[in-house]
Amino acid sequence: MQHRYYCLWGDEGKKFESNPLLFKEIYRELGAPESEIWDGYYSLQELNIDENLRSILRRCLPDERISFDTGERFYHSVGRGSMEYARLLENERIRIVDAVIYPREEEIECIFRELKDVAEIITYGGGTSVTGGIIPSGKRRYAVSLDTRNLDFFRVDERSMVLEAGAGIRGPDLEDMLEKKGLTLGNFPESFLYSTVGGWIATNAAGQESNRYGKIKDMLLGIKMVSPAGTFTDHVVPAESAFFRVSDIATGSEGAFGIITRAWLKLHKRPEKLYFRSYMYRGFSEGIEALRRLFTSGRSPMVSRLSDERETFLSLLAIRESLATGIFKFYLKSRGVLENGSLMIIVDDRNISLDGGVSLGSMPSRYWMKTRYDRPYMYNELLKHGIVAETIETSVTWGEVERLYSNVKKSFQDALNDLRINGTIMCHASHEYVSGTALYFTFLFYAENERERYLKILRRSVMNSILESGGSISHHHGIGTYLGDEFMKYKGKQYEMIRILKNYLDPDNMLNPGVLQ
Amino acid sequence: MQHRYYCLWGDEGKKFESNPLLFKEIYRELGAPESEIWDGYYSLQELNIDENLRSILRRCLPDERISFDTGERFYHSVGRGSMEYARLLENERIRIVDAVIYPREEEIECIFRELKDVAEIITYGGGTSVTGGIIPSGKRRYAVSLDTRNLDFFRVDERSMVLEAGAGIRGPDLEDMLEKKGLTLGNFPESFLYSTVGGWIATNAAGQESNRYGKIKDMLLGIKMVSPAGTFTDHVVPAESAFFRVSDIATGSEGAFGIITRAWLKLHKRPEKLYFRSYMYRGFSEGIEALRRLFTSGRSPMVSRLSDERETFLSLLAIRESLATGIFKFYLKSRGVLENGSLMIIVDDRNISLDGGVSLGSMPSRYWMKTRYDRPYMYNELLKHGIVAETIETSVTWGEVERLYSNVKKSFQDALNDLRINGTIMCHASHEYVSGTALYFTFLFYAENERERYLKILRRSVMNSILESGGSISHHHGIGTYLGDEFMKYKGKQYEMIRILKNYLDPDNMLNPGVLQ
Ligand SMILES: Cc1cc2nc3c(=O)[nH]c(=O)nc-3n(C[C@H](O)[C@H](O)[C@H](O)COP(=O)(O)OP(=O)(O)OC[C@H]3O[C@@H](n4cnc5c(N)ncnc54)[C@H](O)[C@@H]3O)c2cc1C
Ligand SMILES: Cc1cc2nc3c(=O)[nH]c(=O)nc-3n(C[C@H](O)[C@H](O)[C@H](O)COP(=O)(O)OP(=O)(O)OC[C@H]3O[C@@H](n4cnc5c(N)ncnc54)[C@H](O)[C@@H]3O)c2cc1C
Repeated sequence: MQHRYYCLWGDEGKKFESNPLLFKEIYRELGAPESEIWDGYYSLQELNIDENLRSILRRCLPDERISFDTGERFYHSVGRGSMEYARLLENERIRIVDAVIYPREEEIECIFRELKDVAEIITYGGGTSVTGGIIPSGKRRYAVSLDTRNLDFFRVDERSMVLEAGAGIRGPDLEDMLEKKGLTLGNFPESFLYSTVGGWIATNAAGQESNRYGKIKDMLLGIKMVSPAGTFTDHVVPAESAFFRVSDIATGSEGAFGIITRAWLKLHKRPEKLYFRSYMYRGFSEGIEALRRLFTSGRSPMVSRLSDERETFLSLLAIRESLATGIFKFYLKSRGVLENGSLMIIVDDRNISLDGGVSLGSMPSRYWMKTRYDRPYMYNELLKHGIVAETIETSVTWGEVERLYSNVKKSFQDALNDLRINGTIMCHASHEYVSGTALYFTFLFYAENERERYLKILRRSVMNSILESGGSISHHHGIGTYLGDEFMKYKGKQYEMIRILKNYLDPDNMLNPGVLQ
Repeated sequence: MQHRYYCLWGDEGKKFESNPLLFKEIYRELGAPESEIWDGYYSLQELNIDENLRSILRRCLPDERISFDTGERFYHSVGRGSMEYARLLENERIRIVDAVIYPREEEIECIFRELKDVAEIITYGGGTSVTGGIIPSGKRRYAVSLDTRNLDFFRVDERSMVLEAGAGIRGPDLEDMLEKKGLTLGNFPESFLYSTVGGWIATNAAGQESNRYGKIKDMLLGIKMVSPAGTFTDHVVPAESAFFRVSDIATGSEGAFGIITRAWLKLHKRPEKLYFRSYMYRGFSEGIEALRRLFTSGRSPMVSRLSDERETFLSLLAIRESLATGIFKFYLKSRGVLENGSLMIIVDDRNISLDGGVSLGSMPSRYWMKTRYDRPYMYNELLKHGIVAETIETSVTWGEVERLYSNVKKSFQDALNDLRINGTIMCHASHEYVSGTALYFTFLFYAENERERYLKILRRSVMNSILESGGSISHHHGIGTYLGDEFMKYKGKQYEMIRILKNYLDPDNMLNPGVLQ
């Protein structure tokens, strides 16, 4: 029997730093226990080694790039999605891959050939999928996790500002190397510390600075993809008029079309100086309207994030108490925005100022930037108290924001009432466009058991409400194994086109068969 | 017998205004006659009406949206490509469509059904294709030109800055309506006066302000495409992570995948004030390096155009003589850039200034803007003197610009020498990116006959040289019927993916079969 730490995110040792009042308030509201009910460990039996599978894999790979280790297989079988957590927390059984492999680019073709009739292959980048994207489906005899770690080339063409990067490179390795040259790719998802270039492309990720640098799709000059049907490589050119290219269809293909082995990406000079600004608006609608005016008039700060009243309230609660924060709250109160205020954060290399809100100076915005990869640690804490946190995001045109937002809140509340459990939902707008914005909903609920069942119902109510209100099925998380039915419905007739290419690229349905049903 | 005016471009009456010295110099250099040898008319027989085809079309369309008129059929059978001109000029026979139809959106499905076994359908937007994109292939019993003129809806959502536009809307109609609201789409190809929204998408066009607004692909929020396999409509959302969408594959599909009937596009506020700047560089390389420094450091003016020495020389020659131009030329001479200077034009709503060049103030740049749709009239003039003008464009990363540029010039010269004819080639860089630029080559040659044969050889030598030097097969003109072989070679394995989707969308190969061979 092994005990494996599996609390949401990052280092086992690291704790989320905040005013204890925050957690107290959440436990009180959700009726959750103040003491931990889970230590974050999952128990599993030592796993068997399948000798047949081992001998097949050895035809393509040396032993050091094949692993049957229980821990490695376990960690390669669960992503960072709440459905996974709900199961782990209740120590339910989960499906675990039969092997993990770490191939080089030139070994992939052999792997496809040899596993064709026996295994599903799940490409694994950083494993930060929040939609069950790296979970084995059990649809074939074996499940093999193909970890892209050894796809780690890196070449910078400073003259043309082109980066050639292996799919397995993680955020910090990439940006550290670029920083030395004064350059940046500009993709900073909250999962930056662990996620990979290949994962970004396969999910069409959006970094926190997407207003400036775009989604990963906008950064691509081309990719190389190896699939069972063969290898496809784009010409590395600034732009083309020549039908579509493999990067057009592989972006967002979540391991179902082929393995993205490398990419050519646009680089940028790092901004020299950043300006931080923060505002408090009298409610989410007012803040949204300020964002709309900003973006429709063509000004677009690198980062703009607007929290709704609920998220703002909890953020303020998280601030540790001191004389300074006392004065700060007094100021907010005097300006009428302590209750029902909506916090806006702006970061840019120009000094953009907004109107209509109460200026809070640079501090909240600086603080956000400094802790921008820390929020997930908060969920670790909650999970240990039996609380599941889920995030569901969408994008919607400005004209539909209000309606979508209130519909989602209402259906979430209705679902809670039906289920007779306690929960709360909050939202922020980030990733803005001329035509609209992404909306990122976070909801929490407490239950003593059956968390997976509750989660499914709550997820569905939120997602249906998004789709009925004109939102996209996902702005950046992707489909994964969680959204199969909704995806088919969302795509309608277009699903056929995707299926046609899938059948061509992967005729044996060996690549991530849980994703594209 | 009918005589149809078919001189390259625009109004029959309009002439290209320039100093006669320009034409004198070109005729001298190419050994072309100083007097006109062609009046711009093409003679053709009155065409027959096929009663069988008429009765088929009547099943879907009322008579007023079906035409068998000789003139209409003629104009719908030749685009604006030099290969067409070369034939017309020598009064060679050309293939002419059997009917022209002007359907509404809801009639298209019926047309596909009824023509399935008998006709090829060539979608016709503005007919400004320069790659033979609207020429009938003769591969099926009938050829029908489907003119999109009646796809003319128009709706502006100012709140979300979304334009819904029918595929048949032409540049001026679109921008005039938007201008009244202080808005712009921002797509201004040189063919703006005649080309359509659907044509722009089908060729992935690039307007002259693409540095700011992107190619048409970057402007799309979604499209609707009707194809023999069914109708595909995108969700109109700012961004998505959900595999690919129909706009990803239909952009650049040149009428071979389906008929794009409408599109949703991003709008922008019109810039309030424009700054015009012009510079003369000591040669094309120096100018390219200035552009590279500008764009790689993240500054990107709305328009930046750099002419090579040859194009600059001819532009200066075109200026009418006066005291002012005398002084101007004296100034250039005194700064050492009268000979071998390379002219750069900058237009932006910020006052961007460049270094390394001799500033020429705003005049050349303003003049370019004022006459930005006039250049094609110059070709009318040349054609009447037996001179064929061709344009071939590409895009390439900064690191490869010099090599590509000199390779192309050399192979063009070699080809001329082999053919023992006179010609000249020039180039400008426009449509710049962080990673590189588009290069637009114009070449002229004179011959007394066999112009089509010469043209093919010259085109091929230029195109091969581009492809061998790492350029794209096209930055914005597309493939059309001219580049079939080169396209297959360029796409390599990726050609299969395109073919798979083609077979699904158009199983009877009825849509523009001349384009995707
Ligand atoms: C705390 C947290 C915060 C997050 N914040 C963001 C955010 O701000 N923005 C955002 O966009 N996402 C975010 N995500 C989601 C996730 O990080 C992204 O989807 C990320 O792009 C996944 O990268 P990865 O390398 O971890 O891929 P994985 O999770 O390993 O894989 C994701 C999917 O892509 C496939 N895949 C991976 N690599 C390849 C490859 N080389 N070729 C083909 N398929 C491949 C996998 O099979 C899987 O289907 C967040 C996740 C967490 C847990
Ligand atoms: C003088 C001149 C200057 C030019 N300058 C530029 C320039 O600056 N930038 C640029 O990008 N191009 C330029 N072009 C090329 C041409 O104008 C573009 O390709 C333009 O986008 C074509 O639009 P159109 O409406 O005329 O399409 P057409 O020429 O009618 O058609 C072009 C192709 O698209 C297909 N098509 C048209 N409409 C649809 C539809 N609704 N659905 C599906 N398929 C369709 C046709 O079948 C054909 O294959 C220029 C051409 C000329 C003659």
